[in-house]
Amino acid sequence: MANHKTTSGAVAAAPELLIRIDRAAAPGLRAQVERELREAIRTGRLPAGAELPSTRALASDLGISRGIVVEAFEQLLAEGYLSARRGSGTMVAPGRIAADRGKEAVPKSAAEPARTSVRYDFRPSVPDTSTFPRRAWHKSLRRVLATAPPAALDYPDPRGTRALREALSSYLNRVRGTAAVPERMVMCNGFTQGFRLVCSVLKQRGARAVATEDPSHEEQRAAIRAAGLRVVAVPVDDKGVVVERLERTAASAILVTPAHQFPTGAVLAPQRRAALLAWATRRQGFVIEDDYDAEYRYDRDPIGSLQGVAPERVVYIGSASKTLAPALRLGWLVAPVELLKDLARIKEMEDRGSPGIEQLAFADFLECGELDRHLRRMRRIYRRRRDLLAKALRTHLPRHRVFGIAAGLNLMLELPAGADEEVIAAAAAAHSVHVGGVQRYCVRPNTSPALILGYGMLRESAIAEGIRRLAAVLDSR
Amino acid sequence: MANHKTTSGAVAAAPELLIRIDRAAAPGLRAQVERELREAIRTGRLPAGAELPSTRALASDLGISRGIVVEAFEQLLAEGYLSARRGSGTMVAPGRIAADRGKEAVPKSAAEPARTSVRYDFRPSVPDTSTFPRRAWHKSLRRVLATAPPAALDYPDPRGTRALREALSSYLNRVRGTAAVPERMVMCNGFTQGFRLVCSVLKQRGARAVATEDPSHEEQRAAIRAAGLRVVAVPVDDKGVVVERLERTAASAILVTPAHQFPTGAVLAPQRRAALLAWATRRQGFVIEDDYDAEYRYDRDPIGSLQGVAPERVVYIGSASKTLAPALRLGWLVAPVELLKDLARIKEMEDRGSPGIEQLAFADFLECGELDRHLRRMRRIYRRRRDLLAKALRTHLPRHRVFGIAAGLNLMLELPAGADEEVIAAAAAAHSVHVGGVQRYCVRPNTSPALILGYGMLRESAIAEGIRRLAAVLDSR
Repeated sequence: MANHKTTSGAVAAAPELLIRIDRAAAPGLRAQVERELREAIRTGRLPAGAELPSTRALASDLGISRGIVVEAFEQLLAEGYLSARRGSGTMVAPGRIAADRGKEAVPKSAAEPARTSVRYDFRPSVPDTSTFPRRAWHKSLRRVLATAPPAALDYPDPRGTRALREALSSYLNRVRGTAAVPERMVMCNGFTQGFRLVCSVLKQRGARAVATEDPSHEEQRAAIRAAGLRVVAVPVDDKGVVVERLERTAASAILVTPAHQFPTGAVLAPQRRAALLAWATRRQGFVIEDDYDAEYRYDRDPIGSLQGVAPERVVYIGSASKTLAPALRLGWLVAPVELLKDLARIKEMEDRGSPGIEQLAFADFLECGELDRHLRRMRRIYRRRRDLLAKALRTHLPRHRVFGIAAGLNLMLELPAGADEEVIAAAAAAHSVHVGGVQRYCVRPNTSPALILGYGMLRESAIAEGIRRLAAVLDSR
Repeated sequence: MANHKTTSGAVAAAPELLIRIDRAAAPGLRAQVERELREAIRTGRLPAGAELPSTRALASDLGISRGIVVEAFEQLLAEGYLSARRGSGTMVAPGRIAADRGKEAVPKSAAEPARTSVRYDFRPSVPDTSTFPRRAWHKSLRRVLATAPPAALDYPDPRGTRALREALSSYLNRVRGTAAVPERMVMCNGFTQGFRLVCSVLKQRGARAVATEDPSHEEQRAAIRAAGLRVVAVPVDDKGVVVERLERTAASAILVTPAHQFPTGAVLAPQRRAALLAWATRRQGFVIEDDYDAEYRYDRDPIGSLQGVAPERVVYIGSASKTLAPALRLGWLVAPVELLKDLARIKEMEDRGSPGIEQLAFADFLECGELDRHLRRMRRIYRRRRDLLAKALRTHLPRHRVFGIAAGLNLMLELPAGADEEVIAAAAAAHSVHVGGVQRYCVRPNTSPALILGYGMLRESAIAEGIRRLAAVLDSR
């Protein structure tokens, strides 16, 4: 009974089990062990099918003789609480239905939300997770686990492991034109934590208001408010954010998506880039650069980061969510020197640093050129999807203008003036097409109606049919 | 030149490189490519030894003919900026020293802190990272990467992946006597984030003050303050936290370490446990249970969690930092129903959930019984270290009383009344012995002087010599 065979055939360790006995108490030890086990099975602490430790291990744990445990097991086997199979140890009898103390108390509202499946999913901001380079990522993880020193498993440097900050700063300088060095970097859990850290530091330094582009993600405005700051919404036109409108506000920082504005797809025009940095210098403020899907461009020249031009006035935020997978939760900041210490201190206070093994794996992955390789592949895939989408739109919706098509993982489809995005989205959903409007990203409702069409996770075969269905919905209105 | 050999011999993908060209500008394209590359090398964006993309890949990226890139490379080879080796592509000439734009601006204070090495390291709260079960962890990661569906790589459920909440609740119910169900769990980044999430939710619900044990970690008091709450310090004696002192305060919640008080090692006495839960029920408040190193017990009976007794009044916080490795940053909450929704919402807002692949790996690791196996092994190892430490203390410091020896990864060594812990620690450090006093954990300085001796990461061979040196320091005073 010492070796428990698991279903996978491997020899499992004897499982642990919490049992309380009182050597001085009235009922004998055997009765106590029986009672504790019975109680654990009745309350669901030991569910049906759960393996029990071997009698030898349990006796050793409790500091009692093995015979007592053997007798207790035999009694419970006889009572039907336990069942035994040759070669697979003792387990809680599979038929038993236990009263689960905790589960019953959990109301429906707190239970798992249902995920509906959609056949033509045009949601933006979601990359294709089916193409994740699992083999290469596994190789990097394996190499790290085989070679990293024990210290790499201790509490990580709250700013991120040195090896990753080195590899990543080289990568960003090469591919995104940043002026990054390891000392300027702070690793964080995706864009979300990074932006929140920046807001907290700005608030502590006396900032009152942070601007965002209008339209942009509502979650970002919520993060600004949660830091105790006021949100200022600055309009976006086809040249990106309107900097002269920013200049009239009280904001001392602004979050922008210069490479590919979300959701309009506009590229920040050269004059606007210069005006934005001039504003930050004059104001002694900060531009927070969300380098959102900048790695995906198709038929336009690459656009370097703002950070590379003004490293002391720009906080650069990047993540692997769009380039690799959101589940990695790998994000990073490249920060001006005057914010570095505070950012590192807040990151340490928040969670004592991001997971260490994955950081080292990402460093290895970058150094082997695997991200370059993956991005080349994905750019081909996404470009093909974009081409098919553009073609389908020309075929089925030829009178609708399309914006932001040169880069990114989404585009914007103009709707006729007065069109109701919500009604259209609901009608599309009834035909298994998941699509959303631009208004949900707007603070001021003065943007003309449009749909945001993401093609990150759309199968090629689904694109034309999805647009045909969408066109039928639009034509019927 | 299409295939670049890396030093490891693998064929690397063509690296990406940001180069801006203006097809309409005065200088020819070749001159522009040359200028951009030269500038990237001069400024350090392309460091010495960095590999360049193949001429074919770069030309394709820029949408220009390959001949232009070949000519530009040849010019820069001639100028000594680049060097070429047969079979290994083109790279930035190794001898070049670039002016690094970013690094020079980083002041010394923001640079990496020096880590000093200590020969006899008795710091508490640090487990032995050299025994991390790398092979088993790797197997779990490999299995996850081979079998998880693509959706597992998308944004995770902010509460944690379902599979892990299932595996972990079973484990905790079995080993720690909790009343956990997946619906009650929220995964977080170590204890630190979990405790902060709880403080934020309590604050939002109108709490004004949260109590901690005195002594305890200062970082925990800082987290309470950072949430906008007042800290109330409740004294600890040899039966754990003094509950009747808590009853006289304004606190509506208290953070406790019932299984093994940190740093005194006291176990919360049965009457105190009952009184604490009665207080929480009467007050409609919450006990926040830090199940600190509860898995390590040597010669005392196991102590079940408070959460299992009163699941609606106890927030249970656990982590893998002491049982596996701090670098994993795996932590979890088992929460009362009335706090669940708010905890999940704040976790989503903070970082959109913890990394997904590691959560699935941990689920697999638990299900294979690997944590049970690892803990059995570590308990033997730590017990041997503890026995050697106790023996060394009896031999070299026989008149000093020792507390908290039955469990955990540290014990408390009483010092004579009036002894100055800081002076002793400094004198010990001069003999390569790293040890700290209890006063640093105290709010009120009325605890008698003592040293906290951690044995988590101490080699067996170092224990006796470390204590011999410490005794020499103490005897000489």
